[in-house]
Formats: sequence, structure tokens, C-alpha cells
Amino acid sequence: MTDTAGGRGGVGSRRRGRPPRAESADTRDRILDAAREEFAERGYDKTSVRGIAKAAGVDSALVHHYFGTKEQVFEAAVEVALVPALAVRDAVLEVPLDDVGERLTRFLFGLWENPVTRRPLLAIVRSAVNNEAAATVFRRLVSAQLLRRIAGEIDSPDAELRAELAAAQLVGVAMMRYVIKIEPIASADPEQIIARVAPVVQGHLTGP
Amino acid sequence: MTDTAGGRGGVGSRRRGRPPRAESADTRDRILDAAREEFAERGYDKTSVRGIAKAAGVDSALVHHYFGTKEQVFEAAVEVALVPALAVRDAVLEVPLDDVGERLTRFLFGLWENPVTRRPLLAIVRSAVNNEAAATVFRRLVSAQLLRRIAGEIDSPDAELRAELAAAQLVGVAMMRYVIKIEPIASADPEQIIARVAPVVQGHLTGP
Repeated sequence: MTDTAGGRGGVGSRRRGRPPRAESADTRDRILDAAREEFAERGYDKTSVRGIAKAAGVDSALVHHYFGTKEQVFEAAVEVALVPALAVRDAVLEVPLDDVGERLTRFLFGLWENPVTRRPLLAIVRSAVNNEAAATVFRRLVSAQLLRRIAGEIDSPDAELRAELAAAQLVGVAMMRYVIKIEPIASADPEQIIARVAPVVQGHLTGP
Repeated sequence: MTDTAGGRGGVGSRRRGRPPRAESADTRDRILDAAREEFAERGYDKTSVRGIAKAAGVDSALVHHYFGTKEQVFEAAVEVALVPALAVRDAVLEVPLDDVGERLTRFLFGLWENPVTRRPLLAIVRSAVNNEAAATVFRRLVSAQLLRRIAGEIDSPDAELRAELAAAQLVGVAMMRYVIKIEPIASADPEQIIARVAPVVQGHLTGP
């Protein structure tokens, strides 16, 4: 792997550091792509750093060097994929609070309908359901970064519970449509679902 | 295992049949208990008929004899556990349609709050998310046996989608409270959640 040799040459002298950005960006990206694919396909428990390294065409030591433990690879893989999503989150929250239900619902459908972001989402769900380390990552990403932000906008003593019940409706739709694939919801027109779900999400957030 | 020897003695002569009921009921129950425990703990993929047999203290051949393949053991294990639930389902549907939202929500909370039924539910969710065979069982049990029954009561062209969106709200709450355990929903008073969720479920079923 000639493109990784340069990065590895410096490992001994700066063990906890990272190789210069330009030199390592491709390799890092390739490892993260492979990790998302492996976690989505196999789930957390059956994915190994060795398997990720093999799929990325690099040495296992390089995966450990860049990311650390399997849990840290998982977190980096799903977090990087969701960074654009988390940026959109700010746009979602910039609309008037009465429109957040529809914006949030469309935002989630956008993530799940897009093959690029569906893989890491499947990886998160499949892994978090069966593994405590992955569940911790899910809680940190979804709960701390998204739900608490939304709850902060709501003027209600049970704001966090409201945000979580809104999320529960969206999580349940994703489970039935994209993960377990129950019909007719799996094949229904997204607009038909959004029309029914967005008001429910809004109701949880700002309803009586 | 002396108590299984009688059952196995007759296997050769009636290979596809079952041993007489009284003789085999204890063994069957012990196998099903072990199966629920294994599937809930390990998920479908990592559970083996051999592991179930070992946990039940019987020979693998006996598990195959009673139930067939791993998929069939899974289906029997979760179905038997949910039979009382599916009976209650009929009671749920006997109330006026305007009360079904609350009855269904309380029914689901009853299943998840009860340790006896929580194990098979965890087994179903953990397994269905990661394995197509288990997802098929989930679809058959939940969709065919529960959701279509509910949809049949609803006078609307999108009755099945309505029933599924109601179920999605409940599935999402179960995921966040019992499976991934996000706070505060994981520790909230069930009555507080029911008060918010039941009207949403009702709205999906019979709302405008």
C-alpha cells in the first residue's frame, strides 16, 4: 500500500498524533467508507478492525493508529457521515418553532431516502440495538447533539420528553419502513407519510 | 437427561410427529424458555440450536425434533410468549374504536413492563433488525396478526398505513425506552408517556 507507507513512516515519532492532512485524507476516508459498509452489513459485534482494514486495503495497525478502538472507529464512521446532517439540523432549528415538525420529518426522510446516509443510519440502528458500546454512541449523537438542541427551543417543563416522543415517532417509522420493511409503509409515497407524521411530530413538540 | 429419554425413544417410529403431550410438555417449555433467553441475549445470528439445547439441558436433535430449523424455534419461542398478548389483542379491539388508542398503548406498555414478556420482545427486536429470517417472523406476527386486525376496524382508504403509523409511534417509544434506553424517556413514569402517546395513536387510527 504505497499511499499509506508515508503516513506510517512517521508513526513511531508521533504515536498519538495524526499524519499531515493532505497525506492521509484519502486513506482515512477509505477506512471510514469501509467501516460504514462493514457496520451496516454485519452489525457492530460481527465487525472487526481487521475486517475493516481488509476492506479498505490497509493494515489493521493503520486503522488503530488513525482511530483507536473499534468503538472509536464506529463513532468516527457514523459521525462523519452525519456531520452534514448535523449541520442541516441548525437550519432545521432556524425556522419558526411551528414549522419544526415538518422540517424535522423531511430532514429525517431525506437522510433515509439517500443511499449515502442510509448506510450509516442502518449501521447505527443495527449496532445500537445489539451492542451497548454502539448504543452509547447512538445516545451521544442523537440524544445529546440533536434532541437536547430541540428541547432547548421548547418552553415546557417536559421539553426533553416531548423531543424524545417526537423522535420516537420518527424512529418507529424508520424501523418499520427501512429496517424491518413492513408493507404498505415500506413502499408508501414519502409525501403520504410526511403528511400524517409531521403534524404528530409538531404536536409532540409544541402541542397542549 | 432421563426425562427426555422417553420422548426420544419414540422418535424413530414417528419422525415428523410429536411425543404425547404430557410426556413432552415440560421439555418443550424448557427448550422454549432457553430459546427466548438465548435469542434475547445474543440476537438471532449468534444463537444456535446447539446453544439452546445446551441451555435447556437436552440434546440438539431433540430441539430439531420438536421445532425443526432455527427459524422455526425462533418463531415458536416468540409466538408462545406472545399468545397471551395476542389474546388480549382481541379484548383491545372489543372496546369502542375511539378507545383503541389508549387500550393499545396500555397493552404495549404492559408487555414491555412485564419481565416475562419483555425478554421475547427484546429477542424479536434485536433479531429482526439484524436478520431477514427473524424480520419475516416479526412481519408475520406483528403485521399480519395485529396490524391488519386493527386496520380492518378502520373505515379509511389508507387504513393499513394508519395502523402502521400508530404502531410506529409505539415501536419508537419501545426502542428509545427499553432497547437503547435514552433518558429521560427510559426512566419516565409510564403514565406520563401514555398520556402523551395514547392520543397520538388514536389520532393515527381515527383522526382526520
